[in-house]
Amino acid sequence: MIRIGIMGYGNLGRGVEHAVAQNPDMELAAVFTRRDPASVRVVTPGVPVLAAEKAPEMKDKIDVMILCGGSATDLPEQTPRLARWFNVVDSFDTHAHIPEHFAAVNAAAADAGTLGLISVGWDPGLFSLNRVYAAAVLPQGESYTFWGKGVSQGHSDAIRRIEGVQDARQYTIPVESALEAVRSGSQPALTTRQKHTRECFVVAKPGADTARIEKEIKEMPNYFADYDTTVHFISQEELLRDHAGLPHGGMVIRSGKTGAGGENTHVIEYKLTLDSNPEFTSSVLVAYARALWRMYQAGRRGCLTVLDVPPALLSLLSGEELRAQML
Amino acid sequence: MIRIGIMGYGNLGRGVEHAVAQNPDMELAAVFTRRDPASVRVVTPGVPVLAAEKAPEMKDKIDVMILCGGSATDLPEQTPRLARWFNVVDSFDTHAHIPEHFAAVNAAAADAGTLGLISVGWDPGLFSLNRVYAAAVLPQGESYTFWGKGVSQGHSDAIRRIEGVQDARQYTIPVESALEAVRSGSQPALTTRQKHTRECFVVAKPGADTARIEKEIKEMPNYFADYDTTVHFISQEELLRDHAGLPHGGMVIRSGKTGAGGENTHVIEYKLTLDSNPEFTSSVLVAYARALWRMYQAGRRGCLTVLDVPPALLSLLSGEELRAQML
Repeated sequence: MIRIGIMGYGNLGRGVEHAVAQNPDMELAAVFTRRDPASVRVVTPGVPVLAAEKAPEMKDKIDVMILCGGSATDLPEQTPRLARWFNVVDSFDTHAHIPEHFAAVNAAAADAGTLGLISVGWDPGLFSLNRVYAAAVLPQGESYTFWGKGVSQGHSDAIRRIEGVQDARQYTIPVESALEAVRSGSQPALTTRQKHTRECFVVAKPGADTARIEKEIKEMPNYFADYDTTVHFISQEELLRDHAGLPHGGMVIRSGKTGAGGENTHVIEYKLTLDSNPEFTSSVLVAYARALWRMYQAGRRGCLTVLDVPPALLSLLSGEELRAQML
Repeated sequence: MIRIGIMGYGNLGRGVEHAVAQNPDMELAAVFTRRDPASVRVVTPGVPVLAAEKAPEMKDKIDVMILCGGSATDLPEQTPRLARWFNVVDSFDTHAHIPEHFAAVNAAAADAGTLGLISVGWDPGLFSLNRVYAAAVLPQGESYTFWGKGVSQGHSDAIRRIEGVQDARQYTIPVESALEAVRSGSQPALTTRQKHTRECFVVAKPGADTARIEKEIKEMPNYFADYDTTVHFISQEELLRDHAGLPHGGMVIRSGKTGAGGENTHVIEYKLTLDSNPEFTSSVLVAYARALWRMYQAGRRGCLTVLDVPPALLSLLSGEELRAQML
């Protein structure tokens, strides 16, 4: 049995707990929290909830620690630090800072003789795999990534910070005509505005100026100014009733040309449709925890990404079974 | 430069030649044929065409030999034999015989100190990867593979063997309502007949009994009896004009449940739309030839499949570049 630890028990941590229960070669060894452990109830019977700072004391009882904090402030500090005692997997998803996060985890893990695996999830993660596979197979081509339809937590949070906003939910939506153009193999040049629209459901505080709120949303740099954005004001009850979930998904599409004169076109599309973004991300983390443990046992140390992991290591099946049943 | 050899110069071999030209770290070293080498003209200037039996003489001039023969009789004999002198990649695609082919290549390559990589293409190949990734991430789920719309060479050949048939082209077509049911996440149980239909374009010889031909096609065991099949009789000119290409493709779709009570559904879909089946397969072979050469240089010997190959090894980009640009 692979003994899994969970650091951080929010949406992602709870998702990891459920995912571990779906995998018969794993067991949950402990959950760590920065809250008062007595206030945290886990689902799995008999699993201890411990204060985050007690983690090092559990180093001999955990094979892989799955870090379920946020990429903004938690993981840049936690993943390298916990790599001093544990094999670690995280879902660090700030694309621009992956190289420095990799370097920090690699240095800590190499020094401690552990193995780390960062940026596991669907983007970065499964989408990254598909970008790499497709570009390698079709070197003369173009790749496109679309996100949604789904809830962007970052954009929802940005709206909530506007004065007069009580709550908000933002959906990122791919533009159908852009998808069609990409799927046709025509390799269109697409602007940010042409690829996605943004739809916002906002609960205004009593008496707030909704016209000003709408204007502030639509003109917000980076988040909304470069997109066609629609804003709907709804009640808190409607928000909770109709927008409580965290669905997401998207597509990685590459088209490329082959043949003597590039006369043949091929389109590779990878598409995810997810009811729950955190639960799916958790499921990816858990599958890669298995691979990490196997690579650690085979002697690997330092830091890896999903691009370094042979696919067979994710599976419960043996090489023989995979060749007979799955190849 | 990785020096590539091509064994067999049909559709697949010509595709490999074009694919090598798209990859700046590779060069074509030689083409081998069982025909009279003087009768074979290759596209790449200066590349020698040699008799197949001369291959061993070129063993120091080729880093990876890509085998472009057929799975029925060529590859079971050629791949293990050529592994005595070369690192070998093939597209062996008889799913039921993969374990014994693997064992034969593994024994030969381990004995000779070479590395083999079998069953590279899209199914087996990229589809296999997606079956394994998706099943590992969503262990409580169902996987479905659909093929088409595309030309099945095996079914076209089967029709051509019927008395009175001059030429034929068979398309495998996924049933749209089955695709919709699978994409909905409902995990339907589907029979062979419910998943695909078969459409045949047949050129009858002058005076042949077309009613008998149509009946023989539709009742042919294994190939057509379990499917809803339509048969169109057309002229040789129409066949050459409208059905000269070899398009293919298909989808691997898995849906699975997560959460405490399995209340959330996720759908993973991988879809290929290919203008030319042999040219796309060739492109996959060439990308994996790069990975094979890197794994050979790192000391791996014996036989592998695509499931054993870390994705990063397929790419021209370094680990640093991949993490910065693709992850």
